Amino acid sequence: MPEICLAGTGGMIPLKDRWLTCLYYEHEGSAALIDCGEGTQITLAQQGLKLSRIKLLLLTHLHADHTAGLPGFLLSLGNCSRTEPLTVYLPEGGTDIIKGLLGICGFLPYELVFRELPLDRVSSFTPPELGGRISVSALPVRHSVRCLGYSLTLNRLPEFQPQKAKELDVPVTYWKRLHAGETVTLEDGRSISPEQVTLDSRSPVKVTYVTDTLPFPEIAQFAEGSDLFICEGMYGDPEKKQSMDGKGHMLMQDACRLAAAAGAKRLWLTHYSPAEEDPKRYEQELRAIFPAVTVSADGERTELK
Amino acid sequence: MPEICLAGTGGMIPLKDRWLTCLYYEHEGSAALIDCGEGTQITLAQQGLKLSRIKLLLLTHLHADHTAGLPGFLLSLGNCSRTEPLTVYLPEGGTDIIKGLLGICGFLPYELVFRELPLDRVSSFTPPELGGRISVSALPVRHSVRCLGYSLTLNRLPEFQPQKAKELDVPVTYWKRLHAGETVTLEDGRSISPEQVTLDSRSPVKVTYVTDTLPFPEIAQFAEGSDLFICEGMYGDPEKKQSMDGKGHMLMQDACRLAAAAGAKRLWLTHYSPAEEDPKRYEQELRAIFPAVTVSADGERTELK
Repeated sequence: MPEICLAGTGGMIPLKDRWLTCLYYEHEGSAALIDCGEGTQITLAQQGLKLSRIKLLLLTHLHADHTAGLPGFLLSLGNCSRTEPLTVYLPEGGTDIIKGLLGICGFLPYELVFRELPLDRVSSFTPPELGGRISVSALPVRHSVRCLGYSLTLNRLPEFQPQKAKELDVPVTYWKRLHAGETVTLEDGRSISPEQVTLDSRSPVKVTYVTDTLPFPEIAQFAEGSDLFICEGMYGDPEKKQSMDGKGHMLMQDACRLAAAAGAKRLWLTHYSPAEEDPKRYEQELRAIFPAVTVSADGERTELK
Repeated sequence: MPEICLAGTGGMIPLKDRWLTCLYYEHEGSAALIDCGEGTQITLAQQGLKLSRIKLLLLTHLHADHTAGLPGFLLSLGNCSRTEPLTVYLPEGGTDIIKGLLGICGFLPYELVFRELPLDRVSSFTPPELGGRISVSALPVRHSVRCLGYSLTLNRLPEFQPQKAKELDVPVTYWKRLHAGETVTLEDGRSISPEQVTLDSRSPVKVTYVTDTLPFPEIAQFAEGSDLFICEGMYGDPEKKQSMDGKGHMLMQDACRLAAAAGAKRLWLTHYSPAEEDPKRYEQELRAIFPAVTVSADGERTELK
């Protein structure tokens, strides 16, 4: 099941005890990283997360607090003896800016593959780097620059029933294909479908990550039914609302309302303003809007069951 | 007198207790910063150094461990309400790469002025940003990419003698010009030269900063007579010599020999390999080569007298 670590929870400026917002998502030994601000490689190391497992990068947008850690991160990946290509998903039009940023990297011992995502609609894809059972969706959001929210959905296989397969005299060599959803024809001519040897399908596991945006209703639709919704909450003080509107950000209260509208199981807040010295102090009052809210700190982690 | 803080002492990768090598040099409220790797803005803040005082950037070379902190640093300078232009000195041919790096910055509320320095000779200049009495020299060094060492020399004014000026009946309104080295003509027609009202000239104060290079004799000439010589020492283990030669770096022992040849008053080592977990353990044996050596740690500071 997916293991999640919110390795940083800051916005704008890295602080000595609050790194810039980024998410590490690992499933069966392969990981994706969302965003990579200055110092991300340090907090990943502090959290004991293995760079070598990261197979995929997802960038919400190109502001420095979400990308300035890329040169150091990518060089450190190279120092881990990486030779396989690394795919980087990012908003349409961003590739040249990232290539410019990486001009200080010199030689990387692996290829970078850039995949730009559209800004006029939700797009979805199933990256082979994560094993083929995790689908990723990207939602264009409303920030001062082109910006995307992401959701990662693990489409779980239904549980295989060896007992049923044995009762039907299905040889073991067919089991893996049946479990993966394939109908097979046995040597004796019988056709066996996956439903004959599995339990009912299991519900998917969905994680949604949205930051650097105004709140708007489509975010709740996008995050619908998330097992974990991770969302920015720049400030907990409602007096900051107008300033947030002007900058394309949202309050902690906005995030709670979106989580409630989405029917999310849990909400982790992140991307606090450096001026917000103790974000945790709002947690109690936020629970009145959305009870399952956590005002996260760096290193917040969970394994989704 | 110049105040110096070696805010980071690491090479290649920022570690949680060792930031990347950079030097903060302040004199009479104006400061220069040499190099700006990932996390430099954090260590400057931790050391209590004021970003707003930094008037000048000097880059030794463009490798990520010396430049990747620039986007965040420059944005934070902008957050300090800076509007005056910032001059950046760097090796010839580097401006476009730095402009590429800064593509993630968006709008900066001040102008960046790039000044490329030649790679075929020592160049010298007196940046007005530092008040006009500090001359900077740049030495091309031998690294895998174009790289410069820097020295900053404070040319001290001779001490003014008010008693002598009074004896000569020089009105106070002329004192400042005389102290600055100007010969003045008084209203009564007498000509007064600076030597008549000052003591003998004072020796300059010189700081030299050299990193990411093979050791070679011209470094000692360049650093000659430095009050403080700051030099890389990637490893203290002589068995690493061949590897350092291949990569364009030097050992702690090489730096000590250069300091001795330069007749430097003090040597601070820096730019340790991340693999060198306890650089301090070499200090005792290095004193046999150059007694006034310090195996510096982050935050090493001094005011040069």
